[in-house]
Amino acid sequence: MQLRDIGEFGFIDRIARMAADDPAVLVGIGDDAALLDLGGPDHLVVTTDAMLEGRHFRLDWLAPEEVGRRAASGALSDIAAMGATPAAVFCTVGLPPEWPVERADALLGGVIDAVQAVGGTLAGGDVIAADRVLIDIMALGRVPCGQALLRSGARPGQALAVTGALGAPAAAVAVLAELGPDVPAEQTLAPVRRRFAHPEPRVRAGRALAASGLASAAIDVSDGLVQDAGHIAERSGVRAVIEAWRVPVAEGCVEVAERIGANALTWALAGGEDFELLIALDEADLPALLALQAVAEVGLTMVGRVEAGTGSVALDQDGREIDLPRGGWDHFA
Amino acid sequence: MQLRDIGEFGFIDRIARMAADDPAVLVGIGDDAALLDLGGPDHLVVTTDAMLEGRHFRLDWLAPEEVGRRAASGALSDIAAMGATPAAVFCTVGLPPEWPVERADALLGGVIDAVQAVGGTLAGGDVIAADRVLIDIMALGRVPCGQALLRSGARPGQALAVTGALGAPAAAVAVLAELGPDVPAEQTLAPVRRRFAHPEPRVRAGRALAASGLASAAIDVSDGLVQDAGHIAERSGVRAVIEAWRVPVAEGCVEVAERIGANALTWALAGGEDFELLIALDEADLPALLALQAVAEVGLTMVGRVEAGTGSVALDQDGREIDLPRGGWDHFA
Repeated sequence: MQLRDIGEFGFIDRIARMAADDPAVLVGIGDDAALLDLGGPDHLVVTTDAMLEGRHFRLDWLAPEEVGRRAASGALSDIAAMGATPAAVFCTVGLPPEWPVERADALLGGVIDAVQAVGGTLAGGDVIAADRVLIDIMALGRVPCGQALLRSGARPGQALAVTGALGAPAAAVAVLAELGPDVPAEQTLAPVRRRFAHPEPRVRAGRALAASGLASAAIDVSDGLVQDAGHIAERSGVRAVIEAWRVPVAEGCVEVAERIGANALTWALAGGEDFELLIALDEADLPALLALQAVAEVGLTMVGRVEAGTGSVALDQDGREIDLPRGGWDHFA
Repeated sequence: MQLRDIGEFGFIDRIARMAADDPAVLVGIGDDAALLDLGGPDHLVVTTDAMLEGRHFRLDWLAPEEVGRRAASGALSDIAAMGATPAAVFCTVGLPPEWPVERADALLGGVIDAVQAVGGTLAGGDVIAADRVLIDIMALGRVPCGQALLRSGARPGQALAVTGALGAPAAAVAVLAELGPDVPAEQTLAPVRRRFAHPEPRVRAGRALAASGLASAAIDVSDGLVQDAGHIAERSGVRAVIEAWRVPVAEGCVEVAERIGANALTWALAGGEDFELLIALDEADLPALLALQAVAEVGLTMVGRVEAGTGSVALDQDGREIDLPRGGWDHFA
């Protein structure tokens, strides 16, 4: 049996079973990030996110600083999803020895910009030579004891809501794949390109949601909305239903979809790497959350509901419910 | 100008200049590990260490569990060098999707074994598909406030001492390169092979040295004794002199050197990846340190002296001093 047969998540399950329990590890393998209690005033949140040239990014699609920015944003988004504030960030980078120094500076500069934009500090890492560019970001965050948002807190009867709007990164990738990297910076393509190259991890919103006590579960949308709803459903032991007509599609996606003959809603439902936050909440609390400055400035939209269940996810298309395999991005598929 | 022109350490210096200061980051880029003050009873020590198939290890030289064990040991050795106790460890692993699941289990099992052997816990990580095996270990450790051992504490007039003995990993690599992976497990080759495949990060000794208050600087021997002495010299603003005749050469190295016509002392001086600890101390305190159980069981040998200087390193061969370029392992060279 090969890794591709059990998939990324099957392998992670096997690793989790091999690893021992530790009372200091409140949440270990299987959430957005680990949650540690090392005795301080805050709990510690730790996550790692690796990207490899050719598999996760292409250097002809993004400038080096944009590659660095996107790589850092993946880990920072995990910190945001736990309701934590980024502290120290560490970056392992693999680069070809023949790379111009200025290019390497730009890539690391993108990492540092993304980290500092959300109040973190690049505090270390490792540098190795590699044939293809590798960036592995490890981020530490702090969250007041008891406030961390986990995937496991969704309850039947709750609503699902998402910050911002979805689909732009997938739209940008589709455009780049279809029309090539030299596609003119047309008006209609600019918004999705910008959102793809300059993601904004929802650190302020995540912190506000956690501090409010009104969000009972959270995950960042990195594998795709449906799959990430499935992660919440699985960890919470519920059924998640995404109501397709409610899903906020990011600016520019519809125009891009028309241009290349694709479906913008599919990007929003299954695209991934949106780095928005998907939360479970009581619907009655939506206005209170939208009254929070940090939430209001990015928006928060109802996208579904939580039902009694056993970890499944379904799509509700105008009243027709379709049970879904938990698809989306699998690194080994 | 290319990365290979400025080298790994030149590039790290550039990154350090780009990164902002942060009062919570007591020691940032440039020591074995970062030292953080997040307000708890202990300071936090964080390090990352990445290994890439073909550059840092070969799968025909080591079994998958040995590769995992070595990769984890590199990061755990950095934790040991700061005098800290490992807490949570995170592992990013890149594997080909066609790898058998059992092989992947063995590799991760090696990581977990190494981590648990020194009291740590694998608490998370990331899994990606890759053409070549990649392992990036991020380790968190705890050290009581004020006890962390840094590279920067060496003072003129002090002695340099090293735990254990050096050269076995370099000897093992030389044997494998010279005679091939199918070399019979001869009596003379077994000790260096074993030390190479099963490194023992000096966590207990490092903790005891830090708690004693008698070691003023430390680094783990990963780049090679001379180069690592150079790191202490540079960060402490002193001159480090390695006294060649004192350097403890690991069991089996001399026999292997005779067999393949090499120099065992060169392996001990410049081989690297020994994962022993090099410390600066007042010579008068050596007996007190050797009286500590955790130090006595691995040994501690005088290997040189600290003189007034400006960051240089020299080799003293029977009274003849040779100023050395800070050679050793450079990832981009």
